[in-house]
Amino acid sequence: MVIVMSPGATPSDVEAIVEIIGTTGGEAFVSRGVNRTIIGLVGDVARFEALDLRAMPGVADVMRVSTPYKLVSRENHPERSTVRVGGVPIGPGTVTLIAGPCAVETPEQTLQAAEMAKAAGATLLRGGAYKPRTSPYAFQGLGEAGLRILADVREETGLPVVTEVVDAHDVELVASYADMLQVGTRNAQNFALLQAVGGSGRPVMLKRGMNATIEEWLMAAEYIAQRGNLDVVLCERGIRTFETATRNTLDVSAVPVAQRLSHLPVIVDPSHSGGRHDLVLPLTRAAVAVGADGVIVDVHPHPEQALCDGPQALVDGDLAELADVMRRFPALLGKTAAGELLTPA
Amino acid sequence: MVIVMSPGATPSDVEAIVEIIGTTGGEAFVSRGVNRTIIGLVGDVARFEALDLRAMPGVADVMRVSTPYKLVSRENHPERSTVRVGGVPIGPGTVTLIAGPCAVETPEQTLQAAEMAKAAGATLLRGGAYKPRTSPYAFQGLGEAGLRILADVREETGLPVVTEVVDAHDVELVASYADMLQVGTRNAQNFALLQAVGGSGRPVMLKRGMNATIEEWLMAAEYIAQRGNLDVVLCERGIRTFETATRNTLDVSAVPVAQRLSHLPVIVDPSHSGGRHDLVLPLTRAAVAVGADGVIVDVHPHPEQALCDGPQALVDGDLAELADVMRRFPALLGKTAAGELLTPA
Amino acid sequence: MVIVMSPGATPSDVEAIVEIIGTTGGEAFVSRGVNRTIIGLVGDVARFEALDLRAMPGVADVMRVSTPYKLVSRENHPERSTVRVGGVPIGPGTVTLIAGPCAVETPEQTLQAAEMAKAAGATLLRGGAYKPRTSPYAFQGLGEAGLRILADVREETGLPVVTEVVDAHDVELVASYADMLQVGTRNAQNFALLQAVGGSGRPVMLKRGMNATIEEWLMAAEYIAQRGNLDVVLCERGIRTFETATRNTLDVSAVPVAQRLSHLPVIVDPSHSGGRHDLVLPLTRAAVAVGADGVIVDVHPHPEQALCDGPQALVDGDLAELADVMRRFPALLGKTAAGELLTPA
Amino acid sequence: MVIVMSPGATPSDVEAIVEIIGTTGGEAFVSRGVNRTIIGLVGDVARFEALDLRAMPGVADVMRVSTPYKLVSRENHPERSTVRVGGVPIGPGTVTLIAGPCAVETPEQTLQAAEMAKAAGATLLRGGAYKPRTSPYAFQGLGEAGLRILADVREETGLPVVTEVVDAHDVELVASYADMLQVGTRNAQNFALLQAVGGSGRPVMLKRGMNATIEEWLMAAEYIAQRGNLDVVLCERGIRTFETATRNTLDVSAVPVAQRLSHLPVIVDPSHSGGRHDLVLPLTRAAVAVGADGVIVDVHPHPEQALCDGPQALVDGDLAELADVMRRFPALLGKTAAGELLTPA
Repeated sequence: MVIVMSPGATPSDVEAIVEIIGTTGGEAFVSRGVNRTIIGLVGDVARFEALDLRAMPGVADVMRVSTPYKLVSRENHPERSTVRVGGVPIGPGTVTLIAGPCAVETPEQTLQAAEMAKAAGATLLRGGAYKPRTSPYAFQGLGEAGLRILADVREETGLPVVTEVVDAHDVELVASYADMLQVGTRNAQNFALLQAVGGSGRPVMLKRGMNATIEEWLMAAEYIAQRGNLDVVLCERGIRTFETATRNTLDVSAVPVAQRLSHLPVIVDPSHSGGRHDLVLPLTRAAVAVGADGVIVDVHPHPEQALCDGPQALVDGDLAELADVMRRFPALLGKTAAGELLTPA
Repeated sequence: MVIVMSPGATPSDVEAIVEIIGTTGGEAFVSRGVNRTIIGLVGDVARFEALDLRAMPGVADVMRVSTPYKLVSRENHPERSTVRVGGVPIGPGTVTLIAGPCAVETPEQTLQAAEMAKAAGATLLRGGAYKPRTSPYAFQGLGEAGLRILADVREETGLPVVTEVVDAHDVELVASYADMLQVGTRNAQNFALLQAVGGSGRPVMLKRGMNATIEEWLMAAEYIAQRGNLDVVLCERGIRTFETATRNTLDVSAVPVAQRLSHLPVIVDPSHSGGRHDLVLPLTRAAVAVGADGVIVDVHPHPEQALCDGPQALVDGDLAELADVMRRFPALLGKTAAGELLTPA
Repeated sequence: MVIVMSPGATPSDVEAIVEIIGTTGGEAFVSRGVNRTIIGLVGDVARFEALDLRAMPGVADVMRVSTPYKLVSRENHPERSTVRVGGVPIGPGTVTLIAGPCAVETPEQTLQAAEMAKAAGATLLRGGAYKPRTSPYAFQGLGEAGLRILADVREETGLPVVTEVVDAHDVELVASYADMLQVGTRNAQNFALLQAVGGSGRPVMLKRGMNATIEEWLMAAEYIAQRGNLDVVLCERGIRTFETATRNTLDVSAVPVAQRLSHLPVIVDPSHSGGRHDLVLPLTRAAVAVGADGVIVDVHPHPEQALCDGPQALVDGDLAELADVMRRFPALLGKTAAGELLTPA
Repeated sequence: MVIVMSPGATPSDVEAIVEIIGTTGGEAFVSRGVNRTIIGLVGDVARFEALDLRAMPGVADVMRVSTPYKLVSRENHPERSTVRVGGVPIGPGTVTLIAGPCAVETPEQTLQAAEMAKAAGATLLRGGAYKPRTSPYAFQGLGEAGLRILADVREETGLPVVTEVVDAHDVELVASYADMLQVGTRNAQNFALLQAVGGSGRPVMLKRGMNATIEEWLMAAEYIAQRGNLDVVLCERGIRTFETATRNTLDVSAVPVAQRLSHLPVIVDPSHSGGRHDLVLPLTRAAVAVGADGVIVDVHPHPEQALCDGPQALVDGDLAELADVMRRFPALLGKTAAGELLTPA
């Protein structure tokens, strides 16, 4: 931390700060300029924050200078990581396509969606059995029955399964069926859940909170990492802004920024950010082009009957175009579509 | 719902809509203007939303027209409600002061803070035993030991206790000590937790999510109400905006807006919204003046040693001024400070 | 400015910075901690900003530490200022009510609105002759004919006139009629206009840009002050956020924050922030209670016929209540309603 | 417009609305559902808006249903437009690169930057002679001397010139030198300026206001179009959000959304949105991939000496990569880099 003293601060104001920092076991380095004195602090930031330094006489400003996340930071882990989900890599050098229905509804719908996904080049299947919904009157998911459907479809298609968990106490159950656990945007600061998936032994896809700064997103990942789980994939899914033409505003800049700050892979959800079917393909292209390590999209055999987020699902006619994007764009960035690593050409 | 057709929509486009609405059991009312046709829908909105109406030929826009919350709505419950916490009313006609330490740290600190609170006119004690913190390295609260301290201080001061619960599976435990359960801003869409407090038998204070629209806030309350618990107090605590001079932007307009839409009481947290000690009193005055049914503030005997949010806590010197605000402002609005109902003059 | 070096920065990285700062005529103060070195810069910030310091080897972060506004800052002018408009004070110790129609439409409507305003305790008349409208098809104001109406109504009522100017080249004309010039939220960074009103010889009311930070708002005031005009009144009128229940989100915290940073008076516009008639009185109470030096409200004799912003105008029935707020609330803060200074009891 | 009546509205409430609409010359179409009555309005929206419909008895909500922009709308002009600037096309089928220094400083710097731009595939030169700056103490541009430098560099390089105008009364002068006029983000609702460039006879690049919705952006374009100038290019340059890791949040979704609503070309500014040198290339790739009709980037021969926005300028080493993006990405979308149309292979 750095303390900036106001122009009128007295030497005894400065001394009082040096002293109070000393009581925390930290050290204060004083640097006197012509108009201003600046004090650099070294030690336990949490203890500094507990002092009301801003309220001390002569203090003009207090600023934090080192990143508050450690395990997920790239500072001490310069190489970018690859997370493997049932053998499928997500990380630098590849672009992984995850696709499937927003919600698991029936075995048929899930299987059909999985086959659509596979045809488009997906190597992982998404599908929700537990759905966090703004309204208590909306469809909340099939629960364990949905998980069983996902496991059956994995059996049939060979696609490992990514599925959301919404309650810390369901983690064990969901982990017994899934290859990767998803934490949704509304749970991005549900710390009990973050800690539980941190102890689950499964890779985790962590969606950015729709109101989370990039730093808070990385802090949420740190909660998972701190429980011994570094297999975390960050997923940008749009942030809340004043614009209402799209459900959320996809923050593509967050991809290179997060990749620079953290060694974790970063993927993009173009379906939920826009909330509009007609934006999914353009945003998928943008995501791959900006350098995302993968994308996760909704597909549905009959979106007009979908019980959740139908309007944003890709349908059969779009899949050829999606497959085409996944085939041609990664190469432009010197990457491989993850599908090509697994399928014989 | 209302569907607005584009100028070029054909009669068969309109017919297709009438038909598909019919398949859901709903009815479509067509209204033809000179340039535009508008179709009003009556029936099950969830089923309408599952259709991708926006994608149908000739559709220009689709709009929802009725409120999605029912039990907390004022439409069917015109009189504003009063929630009682250990005998203390929160509702129209009174202004209730809730005060105490952000986090329970020691029995002494909690007792001292409670006495400060009481002296300022508080009739309810706040204090956190479970703290949701952005960093996994920050103080997370004392847990059950903290709850026991709160119960002891209640014994000594007579102040009923409001305390936060952060995990659905702690609800029973926390409810066994507390008079009112608090759901924090980061859990405003933790639906498992909302349902759990809905079944707890205790009144609930529901903080607005820092990124929640007023409608989403009321939907969160609806989750609690739907489990049979209508003793919900809404708490405005600031929303996230681009402004960085304050931690969040206190949305005072939300108080009259929410009071008009819902029969539930609405209070304000001036401590966490600003995040700055010097703003607590001005924002308390604004909250009472705008018509809030109460305020909840942090007090701490020694904020410079606080383990959580010290910089925003009121200290002894401020309390006379707070007491003065609580004594003089409610009368201006024809209200009583809740404290006066309980204490002999 | 302060430069924070990354943990791996070398001594020669630090030296390179010291050197490049020297070339600008500034000085660099190096402070070495255990993990980090911090360099404080003293000199011409604009020249520092022109260097790409962030791109230099070893640099982790660069932070600005002193306020970029000077003339409007309270740092060098600790006493809060009072601005006088045709003899009416706006500043500490008083609460000034400015009221009138959003747009001047006819002599009758303007006179009636002015009389309503006066009856409610207003001492200044607002009214727009030039209206910035989002749509080119909306009513744009009467122009000079409107200014003449305002001057006539001033004659009849004795109320000095506040009116908006939207183009630098109209400033002289508008200033020849008006007692105070208003710069609107859409022109908050129209620097040509800010400089023109800075040279106008008239007091200026500067609305906050709906997307402006408090710092940017003060920088806009600095543009005016730099042309020799320190008679600037800041007006908080709501910022743009994700919430759609209100037109904008009134940021009441901005009042005490701006009053602490700047010596200029700060008033509030409760009509345009909410955009809703039913919020004007609650927000007026909140504004006075938070410590605003005045409020500016829309009144209209027949809002249903208003050519601009009718839905938010107060009508006759509300005025008694407004008058009551203006009479009773200022005293609670030890202030006088400005009207009382001028009118015999 | 559509009026939604509340459940308790009476037949006479409905009648009152039909009547008042009749007084404006409009028509009201009543549609009765089981719980709700909906009234569709046909006629002059501005007159409807002037009525305080929301305040009428029985009214629950009032919604606007047709786009308020006409000339720039794609509704009546389904084919997307191409704007030509000194012979260079901006529109569907091509991707145009505009590059140059943020500010014109010296003839040498401008010429060098133009040559860098050309080498990277740019066919238009950008450069500011008038700079809107947040601080009155920052470099404000060379004015007419800067325009002369731009004209000289055009002579030498053959690149047509795009330059900003910040005051309505400079439009004629700037138009006498420039091939395209730029309206900046801070002037996005400076209606006097929009009307002036509308009458200038030059193509206009209209940056999105950093707080403008897509609809407001199109309304600003409508102001220009209404003065007879349909040669308008929309430029997305980032919006203001809560995220502070980037200067603004580039809203890539706005590109396809605006292209669907309007026939005007849409380009992207990846330099000013991120405000960071390291984001320019990733965001350029994203912009081309999402379907932008062009990009505009800052280049500078010596960014560390730049008087404005140095930190975000591309330097020599980046240009090969930029040229590579401009060569390879447009083809993926079936487009041509505009440069290839002009240069012999």
